[in-house]
Amino acid sequence: MQLFKIRYFCFPLYLRDMTRKQLVEQIKSKKSYLCVGLDTDINKVPVHLQTQVDPVFEFNRQIIDATKDCCVSYKINTAFYESQGVRGWQAMEKTVNYIPDTHFTIADAKRGDIGNTSAQYARAFFESFNFDAITVAPYMGEDSLRPFLEYENKWTIVLGLTSNPGAKDFELQQMGTDRLYEKVLRTVAKWGSTENLMFVTGATQAKEFTNIRAIVPDHFLLVPGIGTQGGSLQEISEKAMNKDYGILLNVSRAIIFAGQNEDFAAEAKKTAKQYQQEMESYVQ
Amino acid sequence: MQLFKIRYFCFPLYLRDMTRKQLVEQIKSKKSYLCVGLDTDINKVPVHLQTQVDPVFEFNRQIIDATKDCCVSYKINTAFYESQGVRGWQAMEKTVNYIPDTHFTIADAKRGDIGNTSAQYARAFFESFNFDAITVAPYMGEDSLRPFLEYENKWTIVLGLTSNPGAKDFELQQMGTDRLYEKVLRTVAKWGSTENLMFVTGATQAKEFTNIRAIVPDHFLLVPGIGTQGGSLQEISEKAMNKDYGILLNVSRAIIFAGQNEDFAAEAKKTAKQYQQEMESYVQ
Repeated sequence: MQLFKIRYFCFPLYLRDMTRKQLVEQIKSKKSYLCVGLDTDINKVPVHLQTQVDPVFEFNRQIIDATKDCCVSYKINTAFYESQGVRGWQAMEKTVNYIPDTHFTIADAKRGDIGNTSAQYARAFFESFNFDAITVAPYMGEDSLRPFLEYENKWTIVLGLTSNPGAKDFELQQMGTDRLYEKVLRTVAKWGSTENLMFVTGATQAKEFTNIRAIVPDHFLLVPGIGTQGGSLQEISEKAMNKDYGILLNVSRAIIFAGQNEDFAAEAKKTAKQYQQEMESYVQ
Repeated sequence: MQLFKIRYFCFPLYLRDMTRKQLVEQIKSKKSYLCVGLDTDINKVPVHLQTQVDPVFEFNRQIIDATKDCCVSYKINTAFYESQGVRGWQAMEKTVNYIPDTHFTIADAKRGDIGNTSAQYARAFFESFNFDAITVAPYMGEDSLRPFLEYENKWTIVLGLTSNPGAKDFELQQMGTDRLYEKVLRTVAKWGSTENLMFVTGATQAKEFTNIRAIVPDHFLLVPGIGTQGGSLQEISEKAMNKDYGILLNVSRAIIFAGQNEDFAAEAKKTAKQYQQEMESYVQ
């Protein structure tokens, strides 16, 4: 009972937070800017885990244990948990609680709504789940992002230029002197700071990175699209790093599903290690 | 046991679906195009319900019983459920299952991600929860919407011009000869049909509705922003209706929180009835 009380009253102190300085220190000490994406598709979890009470959490637990020395961040793709209903929501909660405090935790949720609703999403992911960061969509403008940005010591990661083919439909279309994604970077950068705001910029859009860095030279970028989607670690690292490293490279499927059998965690570790080793030369 | 088997094997037949024709018939028979928004903020649920096992579901159940004769649709704002964690997810599940099959159910979730991830969201809301429709954000383009549109007899409701002040930041900005929201309507309309695609167009943007109808004359529009946000039922009805009525007017807080005490359901019914009566003259 005493323990319960201590946990209860200390709760605000336990709120996860990671400052930019702490994140940079983690990258430097691990020589890694790898983010492992936990896109845990229940249908791809190895057969031998399917009889566990919570196969998704058990898979994630072993993946985290195997990869935590090679990465500085974990990104939980909420869709793969929501598709499992209440059970998936529980697996997500257990997973984020299991990730060590040394790792930057991202809810890849791509939320965004009118102010009073975004405030509820912020509460869900920053308080109920206690993530360090959430990805959000910029379409609805400032008041849809403001409730996320108002949390002290939490990060809002706004979609800029995404890695998928559909980026050409709107993001890359001309809007005045900018293209939409450039307008988004330029506008949203004014709503937050380099201490609470990052942007998603897909690795498959490598030729845009010089331009991206001209608009937001100092912000951290969350870069998906390495691995299964085909982006190049070398090219992105050369074009996108800044004096604080400034990028988190996300790899999901290529790491977590590197093996399909009982050796899945060992295979994930091997693949994560390869990425980390490729990153070493860029971290001085 | 027999019952269990029957339910199990019949499950695909139980999948909710509502065709455009059925929705139009509902509007005609009820003389209502009202959608009640279940933005059930736990902090606004009356005190006497807070001791219930599931106060959010109990509140929704009574609101549904009180308003179902006045409306044709319910919209569940997922943020208010997610902010309650696993308990909220359970309340959402019970709520959508409680809504009568005669009512068009919308998950106001504003999702959207790369193809394989959007497929998981579609599975969550169309299969696990069995909603008729989901709201999605267009920023990431065609492959982010395609997995939703591929479901037969389900509806994808794409953000066009939203009701919040932030609409001016990007949606109303010029993109070539169109503004962004016009480009979205024009482009996305080609990806689906009037039988599986609607658009969100906010009632606070009344002066845009003549223009909206010039671009998408035949689609249904989901129109939030009446009530607390201040949009006019009369103005929207006059400007936005088409030969199949073509609009669902959403009211959330102004109905569900019309009363704050034990009379909350009666107050909600009274307010919903007022909206329905105002709608009667527009439904011939």
